[in-house]
Amino acid sequence: MNVLDYIETKRESNLNELKEFLRIPSVSTKSEHKADIEKAARWVAEKLRAAGLDKVEIEPTKLHPLVYGESLKAPGKPTVLIYGHYDVQPAEPLDLWTSPAFEPTVRDGNLFGRGTADDKGQVHIHIKALEALRAASGKLPINVKVMVEGEEEVGSVGLWDFVQANRERLRADALIVSDTSMLAKGVPSVTYGLRGLNYYEIELTGPAQDLHSGAFGGAVPNPITILAEMIAKLHDKNFRITVPHFYDDVAVLSRRERKALNALPWKEKEFRKTVGAPALFGEKGYTIVEQLWTRPTLDANGIWGGYTGEGAKTVIPSKAYAKISTRLVPDQNPEKIAKLVERHVRKLLPKAVTCKFEILSTGKAWVAPYSHPIFQKALHALEEGFGKKAVFIREGGSIPFVSQMHDTFKVPCVLLGFGLPDENAHAPDEHIALENYFGGIKSVALFYEELASL
Amino acid sequence: MNVLDYIETKRESNLNELKEFLRIPSVSTKSEHKADIEKAARWVAEKLRAAGLDKVEIEPTKLHPLVYGESLKAPGKPTVLIYGHYDVQPAEPLDLWTSPAFEPTVRDGNLFGRGTADDKGQVHIHIKALEALRAASGKLPINVKVMVEGEEEVGSVGLWDFVQANRERLRADALIVSDTSMLAKGVPSVTYGLRGLNYYEIELTGPAQDLHSGAFGGAVPNPITILAEMIAKLHDKNFRITVPHFYDDVAVLSRRERKALNALPWKEKEFRKTVGAPALFGEKGYTIVEQLWTRPTLDANGIWGGYTGEGAKTVIPSKAYAKISTRLVPDQNPEKIAKLVERHVRKLLPKAVTCKFEILSTGKAWVAPYSHPIFQKALHALEEGFGKKAVFIREGGSIPFVSQMHDTFKVPCVLLGFGLPDENAHAPDEHIALENYFGGIKSVALFYEELASL
Repeated sequence: MNVLDYIETKRESNLNELKEFLRIPSVSTKSEHKADIEKAARWVAEKLRAAGLDKVEIEPTKLHPLVYGESLKAPGKPTVLIYGHYDVQPAEPLDLWTSPAFEPTVRDGNLFGRGTADDKGQVHIHIKALEALRAASGKLPINVKVMVEGEEEVGSVGLWDFVQANRERLRADALIVSDTSMLAKGVPSVTYGLRGLNYYEIELTGPAQDLHSGAFGGAVPNPITILAEMIAKLHDKNFRITVPHFYDDVAVLSRRERKALNALPWKEKEFRKTVGAPALFGEKGYTIVEQLWTRPTLDANGIWGGYTGEGAKTVIPSKAYAKISTRLVPDQNPEKIAKLVERHVRKLLPKAVTCKFEILSTGKAWVAPYSHPIFQKALHALEEGFGKKAVFIREGGSIPFVSQMHDTFKVPCVLLGFGLPDENAHAPDEHIALENYFGGIKSVALFYEELASL
Repeated sequence: MNVLDYIETKRESNLNELKEFLRIPSVSTKSEHKADIEKAARWVAEKLRAAGLDKVEIEPTKLHPLVYGESLKAPGKPTVLIYGHYDVQPAEPLDLWTSPAFEPTVRDGNLFGRGTADDKGQVHIHIKALEALRAASGKLPINVKVMVEGEEEVGSVGLWDFVQANRERLRADALIVSDTSMLAKGVPSVTYGLRGLNYYEIELTGPAQDLHSGAFGGAVPNPITILAEMIAKLHDKNFRITVPHFYDDVAVLSRRERKALNALPWKEKEFRKTVGAPALFGEKGYTIVEQLWTRPTLDANGIWGGYTGEGAKTVIPSKAYAKISTRLVPDQNPEKIAKLVERHVRKLLPKAVTCKFEILSTGKAWVAPYSHPIFQKALHALEEGFGKKAVFIREGGSIPFVSQMHDTFKVPCVLLGFGLPDENAHAPDEHIALENYFGGIKSVALFYEELASL
């Protein structure tokens, strides 16, 4: 039987099986879900075995186990390493869900539930594609290694140790990741670039303790005001970042890539609607797509200090805090950028405050040379699987693992995202479009078939 | 018996009685302390009766009751209206108290506990002075009306209604308030000026909901950044407030007053030590005393937005908030200033955010013509009671009630503060110096005796 026909016969049972997966509340950030995490790991292992993989193992890591399986029965054919995660974000605030977070429900062609898009639905796409390939022709057309972790939502704390300890075992010709989004509904996409991310926390101390703003106001440093003035100075009037040398290593986009990105069927109107602000706001001289995918940013992600309760309290606080992050692009060096940002922040501050500057994480950008034939095959498989024109895109978000793997194994990474930007990953009413879930299974199966001839 | 000798015999019992008062956690901001508030009101009423006042009543107001009592048995003598409050600030953070907030403890000549300085200790000074005068000579030398409210720390929400409804009953020749501080230890002070206070809350909304800083960062308005930029623009490089016309009505200090204020035995070194910041920070061209007492200010008292928990969250928040206040001086009009500030804030904001600007309160500054004989008598009584030179001072804080009373009754207001600037009113380890508590009782008794000959 043709693999696509086989997949078609399995619509109902695949969807029911995914629902079973989604009902396990495998929230990795909360220790009370430890048993659910383990249940989800066993569930994934069982389905990998059912798909015909060998040596399926539940590998302990620092925190939550990782599931690994492989099938290496296609001598001479390429080997792919498939990555996904079975853990999910907390579902809170629960009262904002239209149907319960862990009771998957179909409405208007979408499957709602925590983990539908991020990332259980996408993991399941790969498992079902592999199962279909084996069922349709008795064996897999390529060699596969599958690695599904349970710590992605807590920063993949044990993943990298596992990879380092299993370098030979994980060696492959390509890394395949499905944990991102398509450009838009009806536009299957291959992602070839991600931004990097540095995250900082700043603590300013002015007075040694909180002071009364009546008795002291006018003669003492107010750390809130000074923090605000410092943050204000981090951008110029064109919303360029003022940190000296910040842009020095930013790779200039080729005319060709710039043109291709701006020609994408990207709907500014829908973007504006999703944002819902009175106006957009970004670096002058760049289109929105360029701002989002190809330009570095500096954002305050949190700020706090002084009295934040109801009503009035006349305090001049001792301390004020901010969480600041920079999204990075090729070829910015995250460690160098962190140093530049810290130096500039300190330089902007008056001597009336002291500053604690903490670097919470650093991560570099990733961009793939998508001229590699595997990207063309991925594009073609998506077009066949969805019956639509597919595109190459970049994303503004960061997956540190992708650049780490790319740097370690020196192999292409192919990001096939089947989510959509407005599907509420990390928020209430997370969902996945059924057409993308089913189209995804077909596309991935076709992609692996095509890879046999790479 | 001489009143001072009588007071001396009561040291121990007065202190024990004050401790009893301090053990009642009459926190007015928290509804769970409703019963404690009522207990404190009954306690005050009982002690006023014990001091010989008649018609002592617990008067209900909007929120927490007010205690009123009077003694009008000195025909032909002046009548004073004494004001204080029996409610206290919350004690949190509890772990920063050396001894429990509601278990008064003497250490190094200070009595520690919530309400010691603000304002139970000072209320008790007046009650004990009245009791001593009556005990020493059988009757009070003047007529007194005593009003002790329970809502001061929540903005005296019901006080003004009570005053308006009891204008005739409250009529007096002077208002006496003890809810402020002395200039410094060993420098008894009569306060003749206070700053006014306007308090505002600002809410900025950019995106309609929180957004992922990876997917959206670089092209959308970040309300934290925009709030910071707005706050930064509220001061110029000399730390003058940039709100147009803000300084238009500021009364210029006379050469004489300026000289007197700057000649006060005010210890800059101790002020710097109390503040504990690496450097002071204020409007250029003014001494610290002038900055604190005679110049208007604009301070951010609170700021919040985005992620403020542990670690990193890559969010661009929908909203960011600030609490901003302006301290005002004669002859600024609070309502006019509020309008100017709001207009300027709105003008500084880009159209990419919407702004909700709320005026939480307004209050004008107060300054007394201290040439009135009652001020000289107060100064003299302080010098006798403490055995030290006393001074006239202004303060940077605000007591809206004082300017309201002054404007309504057109009588002098005399502020006799027995706290010290570093006694942590509103903070952990609040305390009062025992020498000021005991010296206060003596001074107040002498003051009321001297007023008989006014």
